[in-house]
Order: sequence, then structure tokens, then C-alpha cells
Amino acid sequence: MLFHNIAIIGSDGKTKKNMNVRIDGAFIASIEPCNCDLTDAQKREKDVYDGSGKLLIPGFFNNHSHVPMTLTRGYGEELALEDWLYKRIFPFEALLTEEDVYWGSMLGIAEMLRSGTVSFTDMYMRIQGIFRAVMETGIKASLSNGLTGDDTTVLEETAWYRETEQMRRDAEASDGRVIANASLHAQYTSVPALVRAIADYARENNLRMHVHLSETEHEHEQCKELHGKTPTTYFTELGLFDVPTTAAHAIYIEGEDYDLLRDQGVTLCHMPSSNLKIGSGLADVKSWRDHGIRVTIGTDGAGSNNNLDMIEEVTLASYLAKGIHRDPLLFSTGELLTFATRNGALAQGREDTGLLEPGFRADLAVVDMNALHFQPMYDYGTSLFTNANASDVALTMVDGRILYRDGEFTTIDIEKVIWNVYRVRDEKLAQLNA
Amino acid sequence: MLFHNIAIIGSDGKTKKNMNVRIDGAFIASIEPCNCDLTDAQKREKDVYDGSGKLLIPGFFNNHSHVPMTLTRGYGEELALEDWLYKRIFPFEALLTEEDVYWGSMLGIAEMLRSGTVSFTDMYMRIQGIFRAVMETGIKASLSNGLTGDDTTVLEETAWYRETEQMRRDAEASDGRVIANASLHAQYTSVPALVRAIADYARENNLRMHVHLSETEHEHEQCKELHGKTPTTYFTELGLFDVPTTAAHAIYIEGEDYDLLRDQGVTLCHMPSSNLKIGSGLADVKSWRDHGIRVTIGTDGAGSNNNLDMIEEVTLASYLAKGIHRDPLLFSTGELLTFATRNGALAQGREDTGLLEPGFRADLAVVDMNALHFQPMYDYGTSLFTNANASDVALTMVDGRILYRDGEFTTIDIEKVIWNVYRVRDEKLAQLNA
Repeated sequence: MLFHNIAIIGSDGKTKKNMNVRIDGAFIASIEPCNCDLTDAQKREKDVYDGSGKLLIPGFFNNHSHVPMTLTRGYGEELALEDWLYKRIFPFEALLTEEDVYWGSMLGIAEMLRSGTVSFTDMYMRIQGIFRAVMETGIKASLSNGLTGDDTTVLEETAWYRETEQMRRDAEASDGRVIANASLHAQYTSVPALVRAIADYARENNLRMHVHLSETEHEHEQCKELHGKTPTTYFTELGLFDVPTTAAHAIYIEGEDYDLLRDQGVTLCHMPSSNLKIGSGLADVKSWRDHGIRVTIGTDGAGSNNNLDMIEEVTLASYLAKGIHRDPLLFSTGELLTFATRNGALAQGREDTGLLEPGFRADLAVVDMNALHFQPMYDYGTSLFTNANASDVALTMVDGRILYRDGEFTTIDIEKVIWNVYRVRDEKLAQLNA
Repeated sequence: MLFHNIAIIGSDGKTKKNMNVRIDGAFIASIEPCNCDLTDAQKREKDVYDGSGKLLIPGFFNNHSHVPMTLTRGYGEELALEDWLYKRIFPFEALLTEEDVYWGSMLGIAEMLRSGTVSFTDMYMRIQGIFRAVMETGIKASLSNGLTGDDTTVLEETAWYRETEQMRRDAEASDGRVIANASLHAQYTSVPALVRAIADYARENNLRMHVHLSETEHEHEQCKELHGKTPTTYFTELGLFDVPTTAAHAIYIEGEDYDLLRDQGVTLCHMPSSNLKIGSGLADVKSWRDHGIRVTIGTDGAGSNNNLDMIEEVTLASYLAKGIHRDPLLFSTGELLTFATRNGALAQGREDTGLLEPGFRADLAVVDMNALHFQPMYDYGTSLFTNANASDVALTMVDGRILYRDGEFTTIDIEKVIWNVYRVRDEKLAQLNA
């Protein structure tokens, strides 16, 4: 397949116009200046995409999500956090079957593909339902169940263990698209023995780790009171970061936390919509970056975002950093793109993707810059994280396969998905109100 | 015209589903529960809109803009503020003719109509070009030229005076759609005698006032150094707020500023995208509201936003307030809607619009909530400022006239507008590079 006469954006954020990008199988074969017109190209090649007015970018890596939470998107707005969680989300989630999780995942994956995301890192439960959705749709994912437990919990006897072991076997048969992670929900929902147990398990089985870290001031301060140390130090001492780890939120990290995270190669994931909307606070991504920590971007679950639109997250991350630090140069387009693509790929352990370069996997998105809100166009690249939104994404490709194009999904029967999501919603609401 | 079986949202933020809303001429005639099916309604009425899956809201009042700045949207990204202004924006603007301003305004108005905005408050130059665009397109506007000057400036000899006087005459012939405002650019771009002169002029001619207020810490602190008082006190003492005033930004107001603004009935306009993107800072809208100040929302110019999407602005205002104050209950949907609609109408002095109630002007927008990112729907109202974006607006109506519907403008030849905007851009760039 040939993307003909399309603008591309490099990891330096610089735009190159009028390029030809050839895809061969699952890989980017070549990127060269375009020197033929569309008609000639179409005569010579069987599959030519007219890229005029469009920007080709590496697809987004959504580095922290709870994808089945599309099911509870908007369920319990205008409630305080505790009420939202304890009166709405937890009772609803307690009723979810693996099949329900499958349908919620199908909807979430459709939304992600529709907005240019090629891979996501997830933490949830009944995760075999997510796996099934990932395999059917063609997206990539790093999947995990988030472990919680107390002093009575024996790791090997948990649903967590069963699901994680199953995911390790499933992932091996996924042709590299799915990676199984170990995942601890958070410091405040576990005990030291359990943290040590999951750390050992991850190390022994060579798994990456995923965890919520210092998301609220309350959990951060409570850890210091209980253990005399920050969650970052606590986890470090218990060995949680011995394997490559992505930690989500990190709003309240402080002092030597920064150096500990950098020295252990922990990736941090920033989710500004969720941090703001549920009133957690504002993470200081500039400090992360300045300390040499790898920065990635995520959407969190649709319950607290309320969408899975990575362009919106990156734009918000950019605007927040500029506003907080009163510096309009934070961050450059190249840096933002790296956060949302290459860094996410590396955090997932995928060395062969996240860059628009020959030899890398064709995990790509096309943004159509013909809409009114881009006019007049001065530069495609710098327009990406200022005025683009999800509806401007025209095409999403994973491993060289087009999964979304111009309103249509190639692997998803979206009407069937929506019908089933409403069925699940109505069933759960009926059970909850019974 | 009948909006059939549509959800509506009241100023209390509560959703009512399955309503019939009848428009008669320029006004909302009735709002009643729907008790007939679509086919029956279509038999009885000649103009029936199928509202299923859709939400009818009062249209947005964009309370601070520089609408012709669409021409410089994205011109000079990744530059520091001073460089952006002095090397890009000011030289470009110096070349603009009234005709150029017309084309930039046509594009900006198209974008506003496409995203549900029915009226805007503007401050720019060569404003007869904006007036012409407003009259042709059917939108509403409060228009002004932003006065700047030093001790040598004689008000009556300025282009400002000539344009403002012309606008007063034009507005009288606009059937109420255009209101002429007096407008002072800002404290730091004027001198006390000029502030007093424009204050006198506004009072004598019964005009509303529009002004930038304490947008940056630098201007705010500099005023305190030079005059021994904040810009708010300075303006108060010079009589600027003697007439109903809308002040834009107000990021650095402090202390008794709040009470002064409330007591004088000054409306504040919040533009979070612009405040963040150019590194000005974060306004504390909760404090505005808590002090009893009328809050409105604006987009600012497309150079510093970079779009004119009010839904995005309101959502960002909501998320920022929640995040800064760590309170997910800030603000309710009803409050946010009031900021962006009724309060904007009142700030413009339009008592007869901004509410979805019989007898009020039919200045309305329809949001289509069938897109993927709304599914599954729990509540139309609370989904508005969490997951809607500009592309979800299906219809915009001003004074009972449909001006935008399903991708089409009824009063704008959008291709001609875009062609001319590019022509203007290219002419200016050629002149600047000559």
C-alpha cells in the first residue's frame, strides 16, 4: 500500500510535506519525496491512498486505561468521588461477567481506533474478555489484572493469579500483539507481603509491571504516615520496580521520588483529563521530564475522562504544562508526539514500533486537516496538538492492516457492539435496582 | 418549525427527554412533552425535525473573541509570547484591510456556527469588515474596536472613534442583531486620560464596555508599581466600569478587586485554552463565582486557542476548576451551561435570549449524541461538557433561522470563504517576506 503525497511528522516534530510512504506487509518499507501525480501512482500500484491535505503520524499508544469502563461512561456524574466509586462504579463492576467485559472492550477499542490509537496498556478484571476483543479487532495491547488484597491473600489462590497465568499463555499465541503484564492496583489497596509477592512473580516470569502511583494526596500522605516513606520509596524497597514498570498518575511524587523513578527506569503515565475531572490534582510533567523520567500519555477509563481520545489528552497535557509553568514553549510538538507514541511503545516493551521510519511496524494514523477549524493551514505538525480532535482521524492502521477508515471499521460490527453494550447496561441497572 | 421528540436541558442542568419544542418566527413558542409519533407530526406540520438521540440547548454566547484572527491561526507556533506577537501577529495585522477582516470573520463565524455559537462579543480593528460578515451570516454580535493610545492621543481623531461611531449607526440598522460596544484594549496599552475619555464617551452614548483585565502577572504587577493600585481599582477610579462592562481574562485579580467587580456589575470572561496556551496562567473561576461575579466563557482569538469551539472551552473550564480545587462537583452542568449561554446573553445586554423557555428568542443549538464516544448514554445533559465536541453539533439556529445544519451552512459559501482566506494569507506572507 502507498500513502501518496501525504505530510508526515518526524519525532523531531518537523513536518515534511508531499511524501510517499510505502507499507509492505506489517512494516513501513520506505518514506520518500513524492514525485509522481496521483493518477500515475494509481496506474502503477493497486492500493494508493490519496494523502493530500492529510498528515500521517505514528499511531497513539494509550499507556493507561481500563477499557471496559466504557460501560460506565457517564454513570454517576455530579457525584462526589467516594459516592461515585462506592455507590455506582464498584457495585456495577461487581456484576460484570467476562462476556460483559468483552462488549465494553469492543466499544472502547472501536473508540480508540476511531481516534488514532494503535495500542493500549490496560488494567482491569475478567481480562480474558479484553483479550478476546483485542484479538478480534486487530489492535495491540498490554493487558493485566490489577491485584488488590490484604494479609489473608495468597497470590496463587486469587482470580488475579488465574487470569494472569491464562493471559501469559494467551499472549504467547497472539503473534506479539498482546503482551501480558503483572499489575498491582495501588499501594493503598495492598499490603507489603503482597507487593513483595507480585514483585517476585513478575521478576521470575519476566513480566512488565503496571501500577497506580500517588494519584491522590490522601493516599500519598497516608502511605508516609503508615510506612514512614512515600509510595515510590515503599515500592522500591519491596522490589516492585525491579522489572520495567509503568506507573500511572504520579501527581504527588516528591523529593527523591524523581531520582528513584528515573534510576529504576520507571515510565510515568500522565492522564490530565482524569486527574482534573475527579479532582485529584495537576501532575507536573515538566518535572518528570526534567528529571529524565520517560513520559507517556493515557486516557484512564471512560468513567473518569469521559472519552478515549488521545489527541485531546496530549493537547490538554501541553496546555496545562504551558499554563502551570507560564511557558508557551512547553512542550514542543516533537516532544508531545514522542510522549504519546514512541515512549508508549517503549514502555510496553515494543522496540519495533512508535516511529515513522522505514523498518518499523506500520502502526499509523492519518489525520485529515481539511476541516474548517484547521483553516488556513500554516503547518500540519504544529496544528496537531492545538486544533485536531478525534473526529479528524481518517484512518488507523495496525501492523499494516487498516482497522478504521472514513467512519468504517474493518474488523468491528459497531452496531452489534452498541446494541450489546446497551443490553449489558440495562441488565446491570435492573439488577442494581432490584 | 417543530423540534420533535428531542431532549432538552434546562438552566438547572436537568435533562427532560421526549419534548416537543415549537419555534414560531424568531421565538420559542412552546415546550411540551411529546405525545405523538414522528409520522403523525410530519403529517400535521410542514417542518418537523427528528430530535431522537439529540439534545437541544440554548446556543453559546462566546463572550470574548477577536474573530478575524482565524487568519493567523497557527501562524507562529512554538515561539515565545513576545516573538509570536512582535514578529508574527502585529506585522501581519498591520497589513489587514477591512476586506481581509471580512474574510477572516466569515471563516470564524462559520466555525462558530458549526460549533453551536449564536452570538459573540468581539474586539478588533477595521471592524466594519466584521459587521458585514455578521449581517450576511445571520449570527449575533457585540462589536468593538479596542482603543489603545498614549498622552498624544485625541479620542475624536482616532480610527477607533471613526469606526465606533460608524458601528453605532450600523448597529441601529441591524434589527438588534449587532450591538456597538465601547472597548479599551487594556490598562497597559493606554493612559489615564484616555481611559477617562473612553469612559465618558461610553457613559454619554449609553454603550457597554469591553476590556482586557489583568491577563498577565506582568501587566498586573506593573500597574501596581506605576499607579499604586491594581488594574481593577485603577479602572474603577477612572470610571471605566460606570457602564455595564465585560472584562476578559482576569487571571491575576486579587483582594478587593473581587468586591469592586461585583459591586459594579462587571462580567468576567474566562478563556482557559488561551490562558493556558500562551502561558498566562490559570484563572480561579470558583472565586469569581463565590464573590457573586457574573461568569461567562469565551474562546479568545484563533491565534491563541486555536479554535473557536465553546464546548471545548466550557469542558476545560469545568475540568480546570475541578482539578485546581480538587472538587469533582465544580461546576454543575446547569452552572456551566448558564456561564456559556444566559450569562453571555445578559453580559451583551440581551435580556430576551440565552434560555430555553417559551417567549425567548430561538437562539439554539442541537447536539447529536449518537456518536461512539457518548455510548452508552446515561444522561444527555451531563454528557454535554464531558464528551461532546464541536463535531457533534448538528444544527445552529439564530432568531429562528437555521444557519448551520448537518455540515451545511445556509448563509455562507464556505468554499469561497476558504479560498479567499488562503488568498489573504498568501498575499500577506508575500508582503511580509518582500
